[in-house]
Amino acid sequence: EKPLTIIAGPCQLESREHGLEVSMALKEIADRTGAGLVYKTSFDKANRTSLSGKRGLGLSASLEVFNEIRETSGLPLLTDIHTAEQCAIVAEAADILQIPAFLCRQTDLLIAAAETGKVINVKKGQFLAPWDMPNVIGKLTGAGNPNVIATERGASFGYNTLVVDMRSFPIMKQTGAPVVMDATHAVQQPGGQGGSSGGQRQFAPHLARAAVSLGIAGVFMETHPDPDNAPSDGPNMIPLYRFEEVVRDLMAFDALAKSNPVIQL
Amino acid sequence: EKPLTIIAGPCQLESREHGLEVSMALKEIADRTGAGLVYKTSFDKANRTSLSGKRGLGLSASLEVFNEIRETSGLPLLTDIHTAEQCAIVAEAADILQIPAFLCRQTDLLIAAAETGKVINVKKGQFLAPWDMPNVIGKLTGAGNPNVIATERGASFGYNTLVVDMRSFPIMKQTGAPVVMDATHAVQQPGGQGGSSGGQRQFAPHLARAAVSLGIAGVFMETHPDPDNAPSDGPNMIPLYRFEEVVRDLMAFDALAKSNPVIQL
Amino acid sequence: EKPLTIIAGPCQLESREHGLEVSMALKEIADRTGAGLVYKTSFDKANRTSLSGKRGLGLSASLEVFNEIRETSGLPLLTDIHTAEQCAIVAEAADILQIPAFLCRQTDLLIAAAETGKVINVKKGQFLAPWDMPNVIGKLTGAGNPNVIATERGASFGYNTLVVDMRSFPIMKQTGAPVVMDATHAVQQPGGQGGSSGGQRQFAPHLARAAVSLGIAGVFMETHPDPDNAPSDGPNMIPLYRFEEVVRDLMAFDALAKSNPVIQL
Amino acid sequence: EKPLTIIAGPCQLESREHGLEVSMALKEIADRTGAGLVYKTSFDKANRTSLSGKRGLGLSASLEVFNEIRETSGLPLLTDIHTAEQCAIVAEAADILQIPAFLCRQTDLLIAAAETGKVINVKKGQFLAPWDMPNVIGKLTGAGNPNVIATERGASFGYNTLVVDMRSFPIMKQTGAPVVMDATHAVQQPGGQGGSSGGQRQFAPHLARAAVSLGIAGVFMETHPDPDNAPSDGPNMIPLYRFEEVVRDLMAFDALAKSNPVIQL
Repeated sequence: EKPLTIIAGPCQLESREHGLEVSMALKEIADRTGAGLVYKTSFDKANRTSLSGKRGLGLSASLEVFNEIRETSGLPLLTDIHTAEQCAIVAEAADILQIPAFLCRQTDLLIAAAETGKVINVKKGQFLAPWDMPNVIGKLTGAGNPNVIATERGASFGYNTLVVDMRSFPIMKQTGAPVVMDATHAVQQPGGQGGSSGGQRQFAPHLARAAVSLGIAGVFMETHPDPDNAPSDGPNMIPLYRFEEVVRDLMAFDALAKSNPVIQL
Repeated sequence: EKPLTIIAGPCQLESREHGLEVSMALKEIADRTGAGLVYKTSFDKANRTSLSGKRGLGLSASLEVFNEIRETSGLPLLTDIHTAEQCAIVAEAADILQIPAFLCRQTDLLIAAAETGKVINVKKGQFLAPWDMPNVIGKLTGAGNPNVIATERGASFGYNTLVVDMRSFPIMKQTGAPVVMDATHAVQQPGGQGGSSGGQRQFAPHLARAAVSLGIAGVFMETHPDPDNAPSDGPNMIPLYRFEEVVRDLMAFDALAKSNPVIQL
Repeated sequence: EKPLTIIAGPCQLESREHGLEVSMALKEIADRTGAGLVYKTSFDKANRTSLSGKRGLGLSASLEVFNEIRETSGLPLLTDIHTAEQCAIVAEAADILQIPAFLCRQTDLLIAAAETGKVINVKKGQFLAPWDMPNVIGKLTGAGNPNVIATERGASFGYNTLVVDMRSFPIMKQTGAPVVMDATHAVQQPGGQGGSSGGQRQFAPHLARAAVSLGIAGVFMETHPDPDNAPSDGPNMIPLYRFEEVVRDLMAFDALAKSNPVIQL
Repeated sequence: EKPLTIIAGPCQLESREHGLEVSMALKEIADRTGAGLVYKTSFDKANRTSLSGKRGLGLSASLEVFNEIRETSGLPLLTDIHTAEQCAIVAEAADILQIPAFLCRQTDLLIAAAETGKVINVKKGQFLAPWDMPNVIGKLTGAGNPNVIATERGASFGYNTLVVDMRSFPIMKQTGAPVVMDATHAVQQPGGQGGSSGGQRQFAPHLARAAVSLGIAGVFMETHPDPDNAPSDGPNMIPLYRFEEVVRDLMAFDALAKSNPVIQL
């Protein structure tokens, strides 16, 4: 099994400068720690809690920046797509296309994403059981694309709360897809601040470490130079200046987990 | 307050003949019972559990049939839309556009739907609290369309199970939007049959009646001449030959509820 | 089917005077409305959220008052028991023994309660499914007592929140036991005020009416002359001066429900 | 911080021979692995799903065996108590008294247990949030006993399902009490087999390891020489012949976790 991959970046592409700055900082962390790093960014936050939430640079302005980030940093880039039409266009400037959790059952979107031939990261909907994911993944592989990643980002638990069921990792692993823990969205409190989502960033390192201890392929964590002033997901992003520390912590547990598969009873 | 509206029809538009047959049967029920009736149909089931699920006639073939149904039956027609692009096109052949629950936070879809000027019925996501709905409704009214209906269809409750919280009706009513109970989707068991959703149609009359007793604007119920052989949602649809009975039952409770507002403590 | 029974009273027996005053007020409501009324009171609140919560008059001081209440008001009396030892003693002064929800799987308590020969009202644990109740009821009937009532008081739904699943009424009814809706505990917010439970009394009339519309045997509602200053459950009890209004409302829906059994599909 | 403690044993004391055999086997595992080991046993299963479930040897027959186990194996012994009256009696033959999850809010039981002066292990109720535990622990410490352990055993998640929220460990740790993961009860499926609980023993090693990676005081795991024929909890107990392997696995993660406190953001 390969060592842990870290998928990281700010919630949204705020500007060209911001994207370049954060990606270069993450590139340096990757170099220093030896972690495999994928740069995550969003050209559009298409499902903000309320209409007034900022949505990012937009598709056309972002693609050029995406390519600049890829060239400058040398990091592979992941971004999320929201409509079937976007898939082929975005595939020009991204290495991994991500299906948002709310959209993980939208058949046309999944097929269009799969048909780009890019790696597809599909997030498990907050409304799905882990054993529902073979049907989701089957829509992607059924469209001819075997390169699928499955991401856990928490399940609905009562109102305005998510919970991560650690059983979801071994269950999703049975699909054969690499499994990723989205540690910063899993600590969201959806709708928890009225017009936007709250979050508990303090628990992201716990959830990430617990999942990594089970031997997973990767961890997804949003990070930002100044989370408290970020346009979205501020309450759950990890401050960039603490990010290397978190990565090193997870790599230590990953090494132990990868050399000790969980006991099968 | 107006008497109860019933939104009814089969899960998907299976064929022109099927659509005309069911809509005429419902028109007759409306005439005999005095119920306000809206015909519900879908041109595309865009989020089936698995790739092999049938999806319906498709957009272009459906619009003509929609208009034929409206003209023949005289019933207003509701259908669900899945992308922003569909909204203006579908608005030519429908009276009410419906936002599916999984898509209730997709800002562009909501705005495009709102901008058609049609009545919009938005379903509360399985992952939302009732008090999150003002943000959803605000995306529609903020786009200039005040004609919004809010529908309860159950909240995620553990795995493969939904629960209807009766408090959601008074809470959503505070938005000023008419509130509807979707009694047949609320008894779905998402993913409960492996490659498709299960359902408990036997409890739809209970959930509908309980909600109606609180004084709501409408009930949404899918019905089919032969549910057990329907291409989707069979386990939860109400057999058409029992439908009038269910409508009469609900109208009796609606009359009592509308003349007795729930006591405010 | 018999008309609706109302089980009502304050959360705890605060004093002899308090008990007599409230029971007489309820007796008068019963007379005026024709409702079957059972007086509910507790000699001990054995599971308060925190140590500092008041617990009531205690067993020995209460029994005499219980009998005085029964004689003065002529109402049957229900009280909850917490240990097997209490059952036979309390049975001297009560008509119905109630098994608290947290204790509904404590076999010895159930058997001891059953062996008193009194009617037993067992509350469904917040951690149980409605289809788990035959096992609970079977412990009581297996001990030779067929007179069992089953009460819904909400199921755990995430943290500090309960939800009432309306399907639980038809499911529990299949056991043959009369089924009761506990409308004021179902709107508790367990632990919601830190050292005590919060509550949403404003939704008790909604939950009660929705359940009654399904044709149930009874409604349990705590009431108090001054809920905001009550030693326990204040946030969810119904003010006594509004109680008659609530009872009349429920009786109207009960009459309609009892003459219209829910449609069986 | 001290290395991991393992609390282990079969669900119930089936016989003197059975208890001696398993405790000696566990003692040998403790010696070979260096783990701190507490022997867990139950004299009475007081809350079986149904009346027909076996309950164990009973109190009086068990105490002598308990003492024999303690002397023979040299292991400290933990057992659960169900009534206030049992506490002082059982304290004669046990080192740790355990409060069952369903009973964690029964004030009298907690006080009586605390007053024995023994170490008290209180399980978090399936219906509680982790932040509700200070009130529970406060009942014990308020009765003069500071030696309290808090155990996570899963929270209700829909019907017949539990979920472990990994955030509960850091939250409960804030109380100052040592925190334990009950890995075999957390994989129970309450009521999942109709007349008894089902279980998913295959996930116990995952939940245990994930929790241990967060740096906790101990893991509770039931084990049995022949789980599939055990009188209770068979589906979730760990076969005794695999137990040493599980312990060694957890000790490796414990060592890493204890030398790397989770990053505080």
